[in-house]
Amino acid sequence: MNQVSAYRSLETRFRRLAAIEGASSMLWWDQAAMMPAGGAEARAEQLAELKLVRHEMLTDPLIRDLIEAAEGETLDEWQRANLLEMRRRWLNATALEPRLVEAWSRATSDGEMAWRTARAKSDFALARAALEKIVGLAREIGQAKGAALGLDPYDALHDGYEPGGRAADFDPIFARLERELPPLLAAVLERQSRRPKPVKPQGPFPAAKQKALGLKLMAAAGFDFEHGRLDESPHPFCGGVAEDLRLTTRYDESSFVSGLMGVMHETGHALYEQGLPAAWRNQPVAEPRGMSIHESQSLLIEMQACRSRAFVEYLVPLLRESFGASGPAYEAENLYRLYTWVQPGYIRVDADEVTYPLHILLRTRLERAMIAGDLAVADLPQAWNEGFHALTGLEVKEDRLGCLQDPHWYGGDFGYFPTYSMGAMTAAQLFQAALGAKPEIPERLGRGDFRPLLAWLRAHVHGQGSKVSAPELLTRATGRPLDPEAFLGHLRRRYLEG
Amino acid sequence: MNQVSAYRSLETRFRRLAAIEGASSMLWWDQAAMMPAGGAEARAEQLAELKLVRHEMLTDPLIRDLIEAAEGETLDEWQRANLLEMRRRWLNATALEPRLVEAWSRATSDGEMAWRTARAKSDFALARAALEKIVGLAREIGQAKGAALGLDPYDALHDGYEPGGRAADFDPIFARLERELPPLLAAVLERQSRRPKPVKPQGPFPAAKQKALGLKLMAAAGFDFEHGRLDESPHPFCGGVAEDLRLTTRYDESSFVSGLMGVMHETGHALYEQGLPAAWRNQPVAEPRGMSIHESQSLLIEMQACRSRAFVEYLVPLLRESFGASGPAYEAENLYRLYTWVQPGYIRVDADEVTYPLHILLRTRLERAMIAGDLAVADLPQAWNEGFHALTGLEVKEDRLGCLQDPHWYGGDFGYFPTYSMGAMTAAQLFQAALGAKPEIPERLGRGDFRPLLAWLRAHVHGQGSKVSAPELLTRATGRPLDPEAFLGHLRRRYLEG
Repeated sequence: MNQVSAYRSLETRFRRLAAIEGASSMLWWDQAAMMPAGGAEARAEQLAELKLVRHEMLTDPLIRDLIEAAEGETLDEWQRANLLEMRRRWLNATALEPRLVEAWSRATSDGEMAWRTARAKSDFALARAALEKIVGLAREIGQAKGAALGLDPYDALHDGYEPGGRAADFDPIFARLERELPPLLAAVLERQSRRPKPVKPQGPFPAAKQKALGLKLMAAAGFDFEHGRLDESPHPFCGGVAEDLRLTTRYDESSFVSGLMGVMHETGHALYEQGLPAAWRNQPVAEPRGMSIHESQSLLIEMQACRSRAFVEYLVPLLRESFGASGPAYEAENLYRLYTWVQPGYIRVDADEVTYPLHILLRTRLERAMIAGDLAVADLPQAWNEGFHALTGLEVKEDRLGCLQDPHWYGGDFGYFPTYSMGAMTAAQLFQAALGAKPEIPERLGRGDFRPLLAWLRAHVHGQGSKVSAPELLTRATGRPLDPEAFLGHLRRRYLEG
Repeated sequence: MNQVSAYRSLETRFRRLAAIEGASSMLWWDQAAMMPAGGAEARAEQLAELKLVRHEMLTDPLIRDLIEAAEGETLDEWQRANLLEMRRRWLNATALEPRLVEAWSRATSDGEMAWRTARAKSDFALARAALEKIVGLAREIGQAKGAALGLDPYDALHDGYEPGGRAADFDPIFARLERELPPLLAAVLERQSRRPKPVKPQGPFPAAKQKALGLKLMAAAGFDFEHGRLDESPHPFCGGVAEDLRLTTRYDESSFVSGLMGVMHETGHALYEQGLPAAWRNQPVAEPRGMSIHESQSLLIEMQACRSRAFVEYLVPLLRESFGASGPAYEAENLYRLYTWVQPGYIRVDADEVTYPLHILLRTRLERAMIAGDLAVADLPQAWNEGFHALTGLEVKEDRLGCLQDPHWYGGDFGYFPTYSMGAMTAAQLFQAALGAKPEIPERLGRGDFRPLLAWLRAHVHGQGSKVSAPELLTRATGRPLDPEAFLGHLRRRYLEG
């Protein structure tokens, strides 16, 4: 064996894995955006088979031997980072007994079905047994992965979405949000109540026109249509592979407001993927760094860039032209206030950026309690409703508007929720650093020119792939680890001073 | 091991193979109909990986042992047929050394590229070396497969498209066509020349309207949109899997004539796939029986059913309504003559059904001579041009209109061409039998009602899958093996008497 032969052999194997994962990713997109209903069974078999093939490749005993041998080889910085990511994947794939993997797959599939029924009838009792099963298995998984990774069960689950992320790191940050956000929200609402309500533009806004405008804005933001496309699906997402990104959105013909920002949100995800290090394509080190960085990229584009006053001013004539409309609803000040309207409500995905973290604080607290065994699933609705009231003052009267509102837990996503708000704070901190480095950014966004911002993101975030941990990436890019200062400062400036 | 355990184990393995093949099939469709250009490299890696995984599964030494063990087990008729198909696949996958498979993959990929360039410049010399390489390898493959299957090299290649098909069987049939078609064509042209030319409807015909009409006709023919969809691609095809068929077409806004029939042609393929035996889904016995039967289903729908006078009469008001048009071009007699216009030309894919087999006779003769070593690749253009002139009276002045017109050979398809005309004759023979069993078919087609025809095809063709050989299927369905009588009779009735 020469100097790097074990490492090279791993690269070949992980390239094969990337091809299988890429195939799965395209098939997921197709399922959401193209597939007729009757194709579901065949598609489930295709995806299950690809998952099995991937698992067989990754748990091949030779992989462990190769990783151990490669660790003794002379590698450069990127190769070493790639090897670390290979080990992480191998560890995650081998940490669980096949029995547990299979039980989990069945339980989460049952859980999603139970959630659909329960949510439609707004009756948590219909999903309780399925969720109990899932929480039991999630605790087992957390223990097994935790044993392999040297982590406590919740951190082990969180690590699956946020490699290297630990509750001990986000706890003080979230505690600060919990102290500061409720009074800040009250102040924002008080100020907002003293001003006239923004006027809603009156539709209809034909889907074809919304799409044309969305494509134009995507292009302005730097989305590369040689390597991606925009389609429709009931739940917008950014799928596909870095060389071929498949964005989806949905069109509400009665309003363009949230749809257009939805496209820009997904575009933020897509720009990240399109900017991942091309030289390392198909290797683990060229993958996104985790969910908080990924979410930071969508929120940076949507919340920091596109809901800014400068960008809304750029948008106004485009909206007028696209929909052949004019009048008070199409004045820049009115649209800016529409795009920054704050309104606490029950549903997380509809939340404004001031209220959003309150949803996350509650979910994070509840899921940790369930995994720790401190909260029984049967007591979830009551705990939810009390917690939500304490944070927002709103009374939850229906499970549909409370603990049944999103599918995450019922599909097995425990440890994911914190990354949404870490993403929001990361976005603010990165945007602040970008403005420091390139003060021309706001003025350029006001002309629909994302190039200075994108160039900075490419250099400091996208092009880094998974070379370093998320905290290290953020420290290198902004000079400090994650804290809530930039985010809270952004909210104060936009909602109390702007 | 119980009675059928080896067989059951094979079923499980072939179900996994079907999932991999299905995934590949969806990705091929996506590549043709959806993928942005920049996705090509990633897609090529995905497809190559799936091909490799499939090959590894199919050549697992255990498969041979299981097949041998299963052959000693008590199986019912369908299981026995399924086992035969499993053996055939295994034999085809293992007959070639990996070296040859790899060389073939590279040569055919190079060949397709060379063909593109050569065709664009209409210069065969630019593709000659690539084609020589391919013919050399095709002869090796024919010999290797022939040794495994007990066949001569050309039959071994033909068998890959038409399981059980032998040149000795189609030779006398093709000889008959070669004798009878040229004088028949002359008589058709002489008769046609004595009548006024049909009037071409004047466009533009917007793609959206053509699509709406195509969807309507597909639905009338019995296409199940719960299990399939219609999109666009430069080269129309029928892809996907039986439960999720992906048809494509292209729209020429200056004429609906060939586009609409193109949709019905692909619909014929799709109806076959949608009617394959659902109880055996994902097993080899539920796959289409070979290319001649597959082509017979598209030609039966397009040529026998949709270009019939009865169906064209049904079409007339729909066309008028779809395009808001009227006048002499939209009279039933005029449209029928447009849809049955005979015009010998250079390009096979544009050929009418009278001329088409002449193209196939020439190609079949030439490809057999190349595989036998009787025709050097360097001599192909001359042999083509002389042969084409002898059959049609037309002088080929450019390679683009001659031996460079289609990509088959340059992509390695040797042994495929005969199935086109076997398909046309099979279609005529099946349609004749269907009319005998259900005399109401023409009158029902005249009302856009395909149900009696489809029911007959479901029972006698689609639902049979690969249970018996193509000749046996045809004999059971029509009372006799393939002969050219029904086809020639159809041509005489439609073009000399109708």
